[in-house]
Amino acid sequence: MAKSIQMDELTLGVCYYPEHWPEELWEDDFHRMQEMNISVIRMAEFAWAMLEPEEGVFDFSFFTRVMDLAHQYGLKVILGTPTATPPAWLTHKYPEVLNAHQNGELIKHGMRRHYNYSSPKYRELCEIIVRNMVSAYKDHPAVIGWQIDNEFNCEKNVFYAEADHAAFRVWLRQKYETLDNLNKAWGTVFWSQTYTAWEQLHLSQTESPNPHLALDEKRFISDNVISFAKLQADIIRELAPQHWVTTNGLFGHLDSHELTDELLDFFSYDSYPQFSTIFPGNDENSLKDRGWSMSLSKVRSISPNFCVMEQQSGPGGWVDRIEMGSPRPGQIRLWSYQSVLHGTDLLVYFRWRTATMGTEIYWHGINDYHNRPNRRVREVAQVGGEFAKIGALIAGTKYQAEVAIMQDYDNLWDGEMDKWHGPLQWQSKGSWYKQLQYRHIPADLLTLRSNTTLEDLSKYKVIVYPHAAIMTDETAELLTRYVEQGGKLFFGARTGYKNPTGQCYMRPFPGPVAELCGITVEDFTLIKGTIQPAELNWEGRVPSGTKAVAFNEVLNVQNSEAEVVAHYASEYYKGEPALTRRTVGKGEVWYYGAAYSEPVVDAILDELSIATPIADWLEVPAAVELGIRSSEDASYAFLLNYSDQPAALQVKRATKELLTGATIENEVEMPAYGVIILEL
Amino acid sequence: MAKSIQMDELTLGVCYYPEHWPEELWEDDFHRMQEMNISVIRMAEFAWAMLEPEEGVFDFSFFTRVMDLAHQYGLKVILGTPTATPPAWLTHKYPEVLNAHQNGELIKHGMRRHYNYSSPKYRELCEIIVRNMVSAYKDHPAVIGWQIDNEFNCEKNVFYAEADHAAFRVWLRQKYETLDNLNKAWGTVFWSQTYTAWEQLHLSQTESPNPHLALDEKRFISDNVISFAKLQADIIRELAPQHWVTTNGLFGHLDSHELTDELLDFFSYDSYPQFSTIFPGNDENSLKDRGWSMSLSKVRSISPNFCVMEQQSGPGGWVDRIEMGSPRPGQIRLWSYQSVLHGTDLLVYFRWRTATMGTEIYWHGINDYHNRPNRRVREVAQVGGEFAKIGALIAGTKYQAEVAIMQDYDNLWDGEMDKWHGPLQWQSKGSWYKQLQYRHIPADLLTLRSNTTLEDLSKYKVIVYPHAAIMTDETAELLTRYVEQGGKLFFGARTGYKNPTGQCYMRPFPGPVAELCGITVEDFTLIKGTIQPAELNWEGRVPSGTKAVAFNEVLNVQNSEAEVVAHYASEYYKGEPALTRRTVGKGEVWYYGAAYSEPVVDAILDELSIATPIADWLEVPAAVELGIRSSEDASYAFLLNYSDQPAALQVKRATKELLTGATIENEVEMPAYGVIILEL
Amino acid sequence: MAKSIQMDELTLGVCYYPEHWPEELWEDDFHRMQEMNISVIRMAEFAWAMLEPEEGVFDFSFFTRVMDLAHQYGLKVILGTPTATPPAWLTHKYPEVLNAHQNGELIKHGMRRHYNYSSPKYRELCEIIVRNMVSAYKDHPAVIGWQIDNEFNCEKNVFYAEADHAAFRVWLRQKYETLDNLNKAWGTVFWSQTYTAWEQLHLSQTESPNPHLALDEKRFISDNVISFAKLQADIIRELAPQHWVTTNGLFGHLDSHELTDELLDFFSYDSYPQFSTIFPGNDENSLKDRGWSMSLSKVRSISPNFCVMEQQSGPGGWVDRIEMGSPRPGQIRLWSYQSVLHGTDLLVYFRWRTATMGTEIYWHGINDYHNRPNRRVREVAQVGGEFAKIGALIAGTKYQAEVAIMQDYDNLWDGEMDKWHGPLQWQSKGSWYKQLQYRHIPADLLTLRSNTTLEDLSKYKVIVYPHAAIMTDETAELLTRYVEQGGKLFFGARTGYKNPTGQCYMRPFPGPVAELCGITVEDFTLIKGTIQPAELNWEGRVPSGTKAVAFNEVLNVQNSEAEVVAHYASEYYKGEPALTRRTVGKGEVWYYGAAYSEPVVDAILDELSIATPIADWLEVPAAVELGIRSSEDASYAFLLNYSDQPAALQVKRATKELLTGATIENEVEMPAYGVIILEL
Repeated sequence: MAKSIQMDELTLGVCYYPEHWPEELWEDDFHRMQEMNISVIRMAEFAWAMLEPEEGVFDFSFFTRVMDLAHQYGLKVILGTPTATPPAWLTHKYPEVLNAHQNGELIKHGMRRHYNYSSPKYRELCEIIVRNMVSAYKDHPAVIGWQIDNEFNCEKNVFYAEADHAAFRVWLRQKYETLDNLNKAWGTVFWSQTYTAWEQLHLSQTESPNPHLALDEKRFISDNVISFAKLQADIIRELAPQHWVTTNGLFGHLDSHELTDELLDFFSYDSYPQFSTIFPGNDENSLKDRGWSMSLSKVRSISPNFCVMEQQSGPGGWVDRIEMGSPRPGQIRLWSYQSVLHGTDLLVYFRWRTATMGTEIYWHGINDYHNRPNRRVREVAQVGGEFAKIGALIAGTKYQAEVAIMQDYDNLWDGEMDKWHGPLQWQSKGSWYKQLQYRHIPADLLTLRSNTTLEDLSKYKVIVYPHAAIMTDETAELLTRYVEQGGKLFFGARTGYKNPTGQCYMRPFPGPVAELCGITVEDFTLIKGTIQPAELNWEGRVPSGTKAVAFNEVLNVQNSEAEVVAHYASEYYKGEPALTRRTVGKGEVWYYGAAYSEPVVDAILDELSIATPIADWLEVPAAVELGIRSSEDASYAFLLNYSDQPAALQVKRATKELLTGATIENEVEMPAYGVIILEL
Repeated sequence: MAKSIQMDELTLGVCYYPEHWPEELWEDDFHRMQEMNISVIRMAEFAWAMLEPEEGVFDFSFFTRVMDLAHQYGLKVILGTPTATPPAWLTHKYPEVLNAHQNGELIKHGMRRHYNYSSPKYRELCEIIVRNMVSAYKDHPAVIGWQIDNEFNCEKNVFYAEADHAAFRVWLRQKYETLDNLNKAWGTVFWSQTYTAWEQLHLSQTESPNPHLALDEKRFISDNVISFAKLQADIIRELAPQHWVTTNGLFGHLDSHELTDELLDFFSYDSYPQFSTIFPGNDENSLKDRGWSMSLSKVRSISPNFCVMEQQSGPGGWVDRIEMGSPRPGQIRLWSYQSVLHGTDLLVYFRWRTATMGTEIYWHGINDYHNRPNRRVREVAQVGGEFAKIGALIAGTKYQAEVAIMQDYDNLWDGEMDKWHGPLQWQSKGSWYKQLQYRHIPADLLTLRSNTTLEDLSKYKVIVYPHAAIMTDETAELLTRYVEQGGKLFFGARTGYKNPTGQCYMRPFPGPVAELCGITVEDFTLIKGTIQPAELNWEGRVPSGTKAVAFNEVLNVQNSEAEVVAHYASEYYKGEPALTRRTVGKGEVWYYGAAYSEPVVDAILDELSIATPIADWLEVPAAVELGIRSSEDASYAFLLNYSDQPAALQVKRATKELLTGATIENEVEMPAYGVIILEL
Repeated sequence: MAKSIQMDELTLGVCYYPEHWPEELWEDDFHRMQEMNISVIRMAEFAWAMLEPEEGVFDFSFFTRVMDLAHQYGLKVILGTPTATPPAWLTHKYPEVLNAHQNGELIKHGMRRHYNYSSPKYRELCEIIVRNMVSAYKDHPAVIGWQIDNEFNCEKNVFYAEADHAAFRVWLRQKYETLDNLNKAWGTVFWSQTYTAWEQLHLSQTESPNPHLALDEKRFISDNVISFAKLQADIIRELAPQHWVTTNGLFGHLDSHELTDELLDFFSYDSYPQFSTIFPGNDENSLKDRGWSMSLSKVRSISPNFCVMEQQSGPGGWVDRIEMGSPRPGQIRLWSYQSVLHGTDLLVYFRWRTATMGTEIYWHGINDYHNRPNRRVREVAQVGGEFAKIGALIAGTKYQAEVAIMQDYDNLWDGEMDKWHGPLQWQSKGSWYKQLQYRHIPADLLTLRSNTTLEDLSKYKVIVYPHAAIMTDETAELLTRYVEQGGKLFFGARTGYKNPTGQCYMRPFPGPVAELCGITVEDFTLIKGTIQPAELNWEGRVPSGTKAVAFNEVLNVQNSEAEVVAHYASEYYKGEPALTRRTVGKGEVWYYGAAYSEPVVDAILDELSIATPIADWLEVPAAVELGIRSSEDASYAFLLNYSDQPAALQVKRATKELLTGATIENEVEMPAYGVIILEL
């Protein structure tokens, strides 16, 4: 059972750094927070140098003073352990704690996250500061919970210090037991890479390393983060069992599901939709800020109700990069409800006031440097008022979906390096997610794990598992049962040709699911450079000229139950099968020999009987996101308008709108960046 | 009082490297120089290995022989100290003298400028070679002056050797005295960067370092260059007080004003306008070679009359980069007069003959490898003849301007890293400079320094100080007095929000000048990525669709004397004030909430009563630069045609042209690349 | 006399890696090879870790077992020495064998070719493994020859380990004897680089190093490869004199002619025309896969009949880069005959089956992982059948050409760094090669070497030697004799201004050949950035608007026998000579002051009396390559259609087609990717 935050009502918080400000400002700050219905502050996660100004010398008085005052204003406190920024005395005295570039060059002090997770000395020093800090604050009445470290694997998610190489060797010995097993798993016979002693082993040290090593490297990093976090979680559990434990972020090379299951009470996320404005070139058809719903959906797959530990409340920016413009009026509120729709019950803005010093002077908080009234403060106060009104209804309800886009960590990590399936994954997931969004079909981002059950899958009418290159017979068996019981399952090119080491099967494509799909792959080509994608012929279902993108597999039907749905319409394999469907039991399985593009998903959705919920009495334009949070007792539809233009709804039955309390019906205009919550 | 070169007449020189050529060529070379009216040669600045072939062994006979011969031909000699290229024996024996990359990796021997300014050993060896060299040559009758080192901070203007870290620590102790002061100035409480021992301190060692450290790093580098140069200047002053001292170049991270004030007799510059042909993509509306007038104007702000130590006399190019085509016929002469217009009284061509070996075989001199007659030689000889004719009139006269674009080192250096104001500076300065050029309004590039006085400013009717993020109350006071006494002052977005440490004020924008301007900033956005600039509405003064570029601040008029001149015409702040003007005393102060673009400057100039000098009787096309050099007794207008097309002038009164001696009137056609000098 | 492979018939082989596969597959593999007429397998070149699993412990049984079985199926074996991939135990124990980046950082284990050629320890270990391996297999009846190492200088062709610096010093002492000679040759007086002790010398350690050092560095690398290869060749010659010795590849910084002449029986090449699909941006007018004919022509210049050791038989690709699509049906066969046309008599496909593990899982072999029938297997089997039919006729015949594009290693290597002539070489060679291809004029790629004789040159009616910046008087004398005896010789801009050290002559351009050409260069400009090329006026012979690209030299006719053929038609040198021709003896010499572009070559070819062979009875479209292989007894014309469209031939006399045995005449349609071989 996934672990969720337990809140009685939607709760607002704010990140606060008292060490950045004159003490005489605190009381006014807390007073104003109280007025805005902010009841939680998060702090201390970058304060190691204050808490332990020299090795073994501790001073916890500062934050005690802050929390005493906060407590007077009814504020609850989330404390961060300060291990994301070891102080200068520490890295100067123990340079072995630093992370290193792949070439072994140490990453010096001066930014943050400059340490490695493996150094025994760093682990020891972290245990000491955390033990002392938790002891000092565990009985303070304001404290409600702990954030471990900050944004694991943010900025850097690879680690090449000497301590990491050593820890990797230990991890490998545990996994493989013998070098012979390891050599087989990594295929080291290729290019004479055979290892004959454990000390010959390192994390990757070259460009284009052995790909099986590269996959294990990512698994090791994830395990290493969890083992590092566990040291701290164990201390908190031991000393402060009354507090909850979480951490924030969703970054690479970390199995956040396992981290949460093993150590946390719930997972937290940092949501900055304005990032969508600074990389305009990536995708001309990008969902922009709405795309953050996809990330929030991933967080939901870990903790159905969760905390947003940092919710954007102004433009972001470091001094020298990440240059964001200001959110437009209404967007901060819109993005807050985007978080709420997808399961946030505790929403903590980053941050109370923009820092006047350091790298993040442009990572704006609600207040400006000068503390004068501004529209961001007013907008957050509005959310505060609304939470007070509706928070008890919404808290604890959960997002509802009948469609899942499925992924797994092995394929994500293998696909980072592997250009023959990784890019396909992103292409297909994006196409499916966008089309589901435009059609108002709520969707989950499901992560297939070793403990995933048929029950977990059978909640969904449709599962899209587009390019699982790594696939086992066990997974194939589970998926077969999913289809047999009535599910509709979609695969794409390059499915099932690798085993869990990342080696290729000596089996016809798509390997373990060839039989389920009733097809094999006869010929294929990567689409790249001057190699053009073939067009697709689907009897008018897709626009003329629609391409089968990224990869083209020529399918060979092996089973009379498998039906050819679409053919290639150009190139030397013109007329050959491109898309097949096989009915199995009560369900059906589709195989597409390419990566999914939006027109193809659009045509598929026309075929499926998945409708928008409440479509019978509500019409919503494509620019508006629709999602539903429900409990056994109640159900609420969220409408979020990401456009800078008003949106016209057709409400065909009188319905109560929660934020205004008004009953709405017929044509209703949502303003630009508007939010509507309907009681169903 | 700024330090100028003192010449009786415009003087031609040439860089000459006798060590590159067979000795039997020298006499012919000197003879031909004499024929071309070249009277100065510069040499020896890369000859350390000849002068001190092994440590402590000196041989000064070679250049004595050269100078004896030069002296016979009436040539005067500028000697360069050879410290820009330490010899192989030196760097091999003392690798600690080498500069290093930020990661600490030494920059090896093989190019030039591979040393650091901090190494005690290098300073010692430099003192020894300079003392010996000056002693050897100080009494030679040909020598007139010394160039210290060569192009300080060219190629590399950051330094990360161990000796630099150590010197930085010394510099910091002198500046801050205590670590507590330093920690406050750098805001190290952010991200737990607090320093608890001096040895923890380093120059920046990471990407995105602490920005206040990064600013101090540039100040340190500048001070360090000056302290390095001072060792040499002191020796020359001591041993050869009859010679002048200069150095050449205008490169980053060096306060060339302070360098000159403290150590030099005047500043020198190396002018290569052909660089404008090799980066065509930078700016489609670039001034191209005419843009060098802006650099020459910066040099003028240091030394109103100065030396060009290297004037381009052919295509430039290293073997593997900096690939320039040939200057077109007339351009070498045009660029020579460009230098003269802006204050050059001693103009030294680089170089007599193209080197046949080494990295710079394509950095062409006047003569080709093969020494045959060519058009470059003929063109330089023409300049020589003209200088003989007009040189006594022009020398000592000074460029005249009533408009100044103002900058300061702190903002330049802070803006290198800070993407929220640095790019604005370049945008606005470029727009103002171009529009002033096109309108033939001479302008100075003024550097605001700690010793700048009201008298320095009040020479100008208009001062543009566009985006001084770092601003003190003292500066605000000086600027207020400037306006009160009648000046017109222009600010742009992001003015006045930082103190000299680079930390942000807790004051309403624009901080120290908010009261002067009579406005504050209510809302703002960086324009970047998908964030679009608003249009500007200035009652028809700017073309429809003109954007307020780079940054948009919504202004809030705080003072009834402040008048809104233009409004934003789109985006959510449509109708809000964008440009204001306040009359203060006899002057006025303008604030523009964006960066200046050319249409906006064009409209502002329409408003101001700054006319082209001599506009009443002279009409000049936009492609021609107009500037005036004057003394108390005389005044000369230079017309420089940068176009490859002829330009038609209207001369409404009979005027003497200096180069031809002719009197011109009515329609006069300047040839492509033509030069006219009028006696006013 | 060039060394050729000696084959009685065209022979098919395949690369096979038995260590990658279960032993139970071998027999089926060999059986199927036999069926496809594959009679040679190449193996063992990456198997060091198997042959010597720990230092000094050898096990040769595995490949003996493989070869025993292969021998039963009549397969002959080429064995590769395994020195391209030193095993993990070796690099772990002896890190000094590793190659290094220019900054000295070691290139760690994990890829291939991670060693340097200089390490005495590595040379010792290589001698040991090679001696043991040759001893073990020399008497096996299946073995026919040896490949030394694999693809020398592939991936990395620069070497900066400590051992390389040391070996470079030894090489320099042998070449220069004294530091004074070296200092003069490198022009170290420039920038004070003079060396005063041998230990100060290193291979280049900076960007923009001394260019004369950079040229010697490449010569050293080439000599060093050859000396490394010689250790192995000598052992094989000593122990297995009955076997031939070769190596494969054509990579940078290696004089493959010298390598072959000194050590090998013939040269081998690895041909992957599909690389042409993955860099589409390079040249919109690229020859694409047909361009491989140019590389094959270079191989032919070393060994007129040679081995292709790796012929592409499927898409290539590493896990993380080099992403190729699949060859289209027919292309594998087409490319096989492309190799044959240009002199391949032994053609070895890479590889039998795609590897299921390691970096090259996408470098596909004939068979897929799963070993099922596919079109690639069928296509190779077709080639096998055809070779059986025609192989005895073709083997030993040689490609015929009357035109040569000439190059030399010195200019190639100097031009890598030198942007003032290197890019011109590629521009001109490409233009000539393409125009000759389109016109069906067979051409050789000739390498001018120190032992090239007049007889070598006089085989050609036309020689194009476009931009030989480095040129000696001896070469000029040889070229003069070539022209006098009737040759037509073409030069381009930048000819003859450098001596063999890469220093510039103090002679009028084009130096040693100025007198031969009867011209000098008066003015010149590089075309770069905003510098535009002039148009060319050749009395209607070139299309209006044709530019004289890359460089423009204004020619000055010095000799009444030299005639101006074309003039510049724009820019300031409009009307000046651009292209000249001088008749000398029975021949003529042309000089073009720019780089050759296709329209200019087109016009020149119109002037010359070089016709397509057999043009009197055969018309071939431009898309089809035409070449002829002949012996004294017979002659065969190959027609290769690289287009995806059919091509129409006009065959005006009845002619026998070899592959079908049919007689063809009149209009004949070649299919897309078709191959025709005519008996002449």
